[in-house]
Amino acid sequence: MRIREALFGPATVGSVLILLLGLAFSTADAQQADSLPSWANRSARSAIVKFVREVTKKGGKEYVPPEQRIAVFDNDGTLWCEQPVVQIAFAMQRIKQMAPAHPEWKDRQPYKAVLAGDDQYLVDDLLSGGHAFLDMVETSHAGITKAAFRQNVREFLATARHPKFNVPYTKAVYAPMVELLAYLRSNGFETHICSGGGIDFLRVFSRPTYGINPANVIGSSTLDRFERIDGQWQLTKTRKGLFVNDKSGKPVGIELHIGRKPIFAAGNVRSGGDIAMLTYCHSHRLPSLQILVNHDDGDREFVYSEKDNASLNAAKEQGWHVVSMKSDWKQIFSFGDE
Amino acid sequence: MRIREALFGPATVGSVLILLLGLAFSTADAQQADSLPSWANRSARSAIVKFVREVTKKGGKEYVPPEQRIAVFDNDGTLWCEQPVVQIAFAMQRIKQMAPAHPEWKDRQPYKAVLAGDDQYLVDDLLSGGHAFLDMVETSHAGITKAAFRQNVREFLATARHPKFNVPYTKAVYAPMVELLAYLRSNGFETHICSGGGIDFLRVFSRPTYGINPANVIGSSTLDRFERIDGQWQLTKTRKGLFVNDKSGKPVGIELHIGRKPIFAAGNVRSGGDIAMLTYCHSHRLPSLQILVNHDDGDREFVYSEKDNASLNAAKEQGWHVVSMKSDWKQIFSFGDE
Repeated sequence: MRIREALFGPATVGSVLILLLGLAFSTADAQQADSLPSWANRSARSAIVKFVREVTKKGGKEYVPPEQRIAVFDNDGTLWCEQPVVQIAFAMQRIKQMAPAHPEWKDRQPYKAVLAGDDQYLVDDLLSGGHAFLDMVETSHAGITKAAFRQNVREFLATARHPKFNVPYTKAVYAPMVELLAYLRSNGFETHICSGGGIDFLRVFSRPTYGINPANVIGSSTLDRFERIDGQWQLTKTRKGLFVNDKSGKPVGIELHIGRKPIFAAGNVRSGGDIAMLTYCHSHRLPSLQILVNHDDGDREFVYSEKDNASLNAAKEQGWHVVSMKSDWKQIFSFGDE
Repeated sequence: MRIREALFGPATVGSVLILLLGLAFSTADAQQADSLPSWANRSARSAIVKFVREVTKKGGKEYVPPEQRIAVFDNDGTLWCEQPVVQIAFAMQRIKQMAPAHPEWKDRQPYKAVLAGDDQYLVDDLLSGGHAFLDMVETSHAGITKAAFRQNVREFLATARHPKFNVPYTKAVYAPMVELLAYLRSNGFETHICSGGGIDFLRVFSRPTYGINPANVIGSSTLDRFERIDGQWQLTKTRKGLFVNDKSGKPVGIELHIGRKPIFAAGNVRSGGDIAMLTYCHSHRLPSLQILVNHDDGDREFVYSEKDNASLNAAKEQGWHVVSMKSDWKQIFSFGDE
């Protein structure tokens, strides 16, 4: 009856305010309970929710002030599918589009292999250091203005489709991780991508796909050139100052771009590329949480692992939470029925 | 009478809400009017207030959405005093502190000059490219862990005092610019430092001094090394991958760290170091504003200018707002009486 009175009957400013505040709090509680609907009620989900509750509880001994609530997420295999690696698919498409202007590529590797669809050549090169591969990526990315590069990426993402799921690559993102990003942000976390992929490539879709602004993207990078072209000041992509944001480069990239150690980090099992990032996060003097996505669902996604098992071994040693896509995720993608 | 009724008499939720919203708006208006108290009521202040009102007015033709409200500020000479350049004072103090372990420095330039207090040698070197100077800065900054470096900077800032004003360097900051940073943030802007100074040096004091988080600092940088030292994972400063965030490097640094073009940029007259940054901002397709601080107040600060007048010429050509410290700032510093 008091609520009814406050809403519809005579009321003081005070009682209305109390009511409004009360409504706001109940809404917040409800939001939290519903914010990870794709996560099965298992230990990974519980660990995440417990961690977030503790670091946000003012006066609690695990409390972490908002400016220190930094979360970093690998992208390929952690936020979206990495079978195939999307940026490589983009680079190969660009090489094909550029080929008519480069007749010499027909006899030159790795272009010959790309144009002939000889994937094995590229795989062999990658396994032996990836020099030809890097050259191809640079050729397909550098020497054009930032604006032109972004346009190329946009066109690719608008037209290319995932070979298994037949959706645009930006739809082959993991619904549980998109929920987790939003859940962390609603609890005062600043969310960042920290990927071995190119920073310029990632920034084209980070905001519409994950709600992550370009400024919060950390990736491999080169240094642009600022120059006047046809009377317009432009940034041009170059091959200079290459920084590879992978493996032990990830903590370096995080420090360069954020300047603070994250208290939350998420990576995945494949190449050991996230071990250094999770180790770095785990070394925090403040409470921290690490999760490692394991690709063990061949029906709904893919099954793959590491030859040396380094990531899973590190997880066991340091107490990171391994997320089984098969068991921990009720839903993997938000497209169609599964 | 209606307001009185709403406050003290019987009221519906609707009328109370309208009243509360009304109060909120009047408070916001008042805040805006009072938020730049150190600025004289002249054209620079008017231009800033007009610009901010226009880009924040929803539905207005100059409206800019919050995620595009990026503001960048040079530091030396724009946010704080650059006479002397504080980071050079820090580097020279470090060289003196390190000297006992380096007896060979007594006969080796530029260390000999630093230890002998021969400023002219360093000035001459800077004018001829600054190679000896850069070597000295690197020696005083690199080869130690990030944690140790930060501690060195903290100790310096806690003890060193500005030679003219006899206050810590972090107090020799321009009150009108600190107000401007807060004013922009309260209007949905994201504020960033974009300085030729070292990113690690700036990040030690950016938050307490300017309210700018480490992640929003853009500066000259090198690439750290992630390594285990005495069982602890650490980042160590190196000399590798040097990126100089000055002159045409500033748009490159902005792109690397933010990935978006700013709509607001502030720099100062001295070396022409901010021309490229302001030009870049000015080339925005969205409404933008550029301000250029002119050091013309020898009584309250310092008087200096550029030999070739390049910054002021560019300001005239592109329509940037020149801020006279003497005329536009009622107060320069917040310490003592002026």
